[in-house]
Amino acid sequence: MKHELDRHMENAGVDAIIISGAPSKSKNIFYFTGFAKITGGHIIKIRGKDPVLLHGHMEVDEAKKIGIELMDYREFGMLELRKHAPDDITGDVLFYQKLFKKFDISGTVWMGMEMSAGYAYEFMKRLDLACVNVDFVRDFSKPPIARARVTKDDSEIDIIKDLGVRVARVHEKVRGFLGSLTEKDGLAVTSSGDPVTIGEFKESLKEWSREEDLFVGVDTIFAQGRDAGFPHSHGEDDDKLAVGKTIVFDYFPSQPGGGYFFDITRTYCLGRAPENVQKIYDDVFEIQKKVCGSLELQKQCSEYDRMVLDFYEEKGYPTLRKDTKTNSGYVHSLGHGVGLELHESPSLSDFSKKDEPLQPGYVFTVEPGLYFPDEGMGVRIEDVVAVRSDGTIENLTDVTKDLVIPLKG
Amino acid sequence: MKHELDRHMENAGVDAIIISGAPSKSKNIFYFTGFAKITGGHIIKIRGKDPVLLHGHMEVDEAKKIGIELMDYREFGMLELRKHAPDDITGDVLFYQKLFKKFDISGTVWMGMEMSAGYAYEFMKRLDLACVNVDFVRDFSKPPIARARVTKDDSEIDIIKDLGVRVARVHEKVRGFLGSLTEKDGLAVTSSGDPVTIGEFKESLKEWSREEDLFVGVDTIFAQGRDAGFPHSHGEDDDKLAVGKTIVFDYFPSQPGGGYFFDITRTYCLGRAPENVQKIYDDVFEIQKKVCGSLELQKQCSEYDRMVLDFYEEKGYPTLRKDTKTNSGYVHSLGHGVGLELHESPSLSDFSKKDEPLQPGYVFTVEPGLYFPDEGMGVRIEDVVAVRSDGTIENLTDVTKDLVIPLKG
Repeated sequence: MKHELDRHMENAGVDAIIISGAPSKSKNIFYFTGFAKITGGHIIKIRGKDPVLLHGHMEVDEAKKIGIELMDYREFGMLELRKHAPDDITGDVLFYQKLFKKFDISGTVWMGMEMSAGYAYEFMKRLDLACVNVDFVRDFSKPPIARARVTKDDSEIDIIKDLGVRVARVHEKVRGFLGSLTEKDGLAVTSSGDPVTIGEFKESLKEWSREEDLFVGVDTIFAQGRDAGFPHSHGEDDDKLAVGKTIVFDYFPSQPGGGYFFDITRTYCLGRAPENVQKIYDDVFEIQKKVCGSLELQKQCSEYDRMVLDFYEEKGYPTLRKDTKTNSGYVHSLGHGVGLELHESPSLSDFSKKDEPLQPGYVFTVEPGLYFPDEGMGVRIEDVVAVRSDGTIENLTDVTKDLVIPLKG
Repeated sequence: MKHELDRHMENAGVDAIIISGAPSKSKNIFYFTGFAKITGGHIIKIRGKDPVLLHGHMEVDEAKKIGIELMDYREFGMLELRKHAPDDITGDVLFYQKLFKKFDISGTVWMGMEMSAGYAYEFMKRLDLACVNVDFVRDFSKPPIARARVTKDDSEIDIIKDLGVRVARVHEKVRGFLGSLTEKDGLAVTSSGDPVTIGEFKESLKEWSREEDLFVGVDTIFAQGRDAGFPHSHGEDDDKLAVGKTIVFDYFPSQPGGGYFFDITRTYCLGRAPENVQKIYDDVFEIQKKVCGSLELQKQCSEYDRMVLDFYEEKGYPTLRKDTKTNSGYVHSLGHGVGLELHESPSLSDFSKKDEPLQPGYVFTVEPGLYFPDEGMGVRIEDVVAVRSDGTIENLTDVTKDLVIPLKG
């Protein structure tokens, strides 16, 4: 949580943090600026002090609306620096030297500005030589801002919960639409007998999302049949909706213009489900419920993934733990944090080395799945779960988990 | 242009380039993958060879659609690396060592993966120690991918030109809507007498943009009166459209889901323009036309900015060249490249040290402006201009430049 940032800095031995970027691109910057309409800036956070935003002089009016402390880049003579420095790196070294001086920064500094690796190497080498009072963090195992971000306060959880409510309304429209179709020659068709392509469905989905003020950036996963057997296949726009095939529908909209994400997956069969599909679905559903029902504060996140691995392996399904090269069975891990990024900490994974006990403020997915591309099918069920500041565990996902959507007629 | 990448690598003494990221976030990655529905990957480009995309095993089907050479991360034992390395940096060092070996990379390598500066410093130090056959680029003045990207081939220019055609249709709707208003108590109101807020206007603009398949990501600038006097003010949603005030309308949509940008600014006065505004507008319009008419291959880009500075200073307007701290007059530079980023090279700026002669493939804005926040006004006129591969200079912006939009009645 943001108010714990000083504590995370202390734990990591960090005296100051510097980050930079555009709120629309850097979620760390967004964490401080919110939806401010500025093209970019630096955040300077010194332990024990309020963060300061450096901003361009043309954006002073928009920056003022944020309500945090401000400083104009002109204070550093940026225009002259840019004009007279012999190259970018020299300009950057001079700028950061001025910055350290202006903010009286000494001690251990977390340099969190995004740069390309090679440029950063050369720049940091030269800055390191030029600065005597400053050390740079070398141990990145306790990133203070990421640590703060991973535990959401209740107001952040409320934002994500509200997204979940709107997502549930979109899902109702989706099921309403799909349930209005009828069967014809193995396809699900409209009342006028026309098949529906996945591309057409996705267009409607975008419209329903807009109606709920949800933003669909990256293409939604709506993968049918064999495509459903690949967890990250997005489905083929030209494919027609068919009866009796698994459809993995993974929907992950965000607040428009940046902000927080939601993430939900349901697996549908239109009209009816083949017996083997229903059996596999029941297994995924059973373990998904079991995990959600056994979430406990302080238990290691990786344990839940092992719970799923044990369950599947006992039933004879292939898993990544048994064979790291398998393409069928359980081929991903159990879940991931959700927040300003669609995928962030914590990781509910047996493979992760960043294993941590479940804590208040965690918001994460629980999404076991089973995939059999060679049999033309896949199943995944995904909910978002939050741990409130008082330790209450709350599933933010109120959407039915029926596999079959009955068709009309 | 992409086909010149090998030449740019040779000029910069670069034997191999490594970049990484998501197509939706990294425009360098997008340059190679286009609209591929993958969450991310690495591009390995060795001089004289075709680029290779490293991808996750779950995304093999989506990656195949790109039509470039592929390699699965599993070839590097990523899962085991991640699990057994004592920390992220060690895991990264081992991964890149394997990568250099697999691709037989030696010589000078451009490490273009985006990382936070502090992490990159530590990671690169350790990788540098671990690799004997590899040197890292230290001179960043000739970035090969950026160099390739700055000169668009005709097919890229056609994409941007097509955006311009759609933008022109949106502008017609905008002028049609604004011209349908009438004056009442100094406000521009609808036929039913209701004022129109800037927020309401922007909602309509989003709808018109969607109709033309244009994506408005960051909020459009529609700044009226004093707000128009700050080049990057976006305008106040609650403000009502008024008669006789300058409105700076800076519209910069992109292809939906990423891709190329367009960028156009027009300044409007509803109903009528005060005399002093019309005079300032005429000056901006005159120099904008003059610059567009004098664009010539091989002339330095900065010269055009100096042309504007000379013109304004002669007329007695304040400029940044005369006073780097001025808030009024000409407070930005003349233009910037437009492509996969809204702002990219070249820079048409007297302040830029990266001055270059105008070349085939350049696509850039010409946007002189004058700002007087204390007088509650600002003016900017912006077109996008392209230089075709045969040297033809083409203005891609076919939108009227009349200042006044007459109102009804």
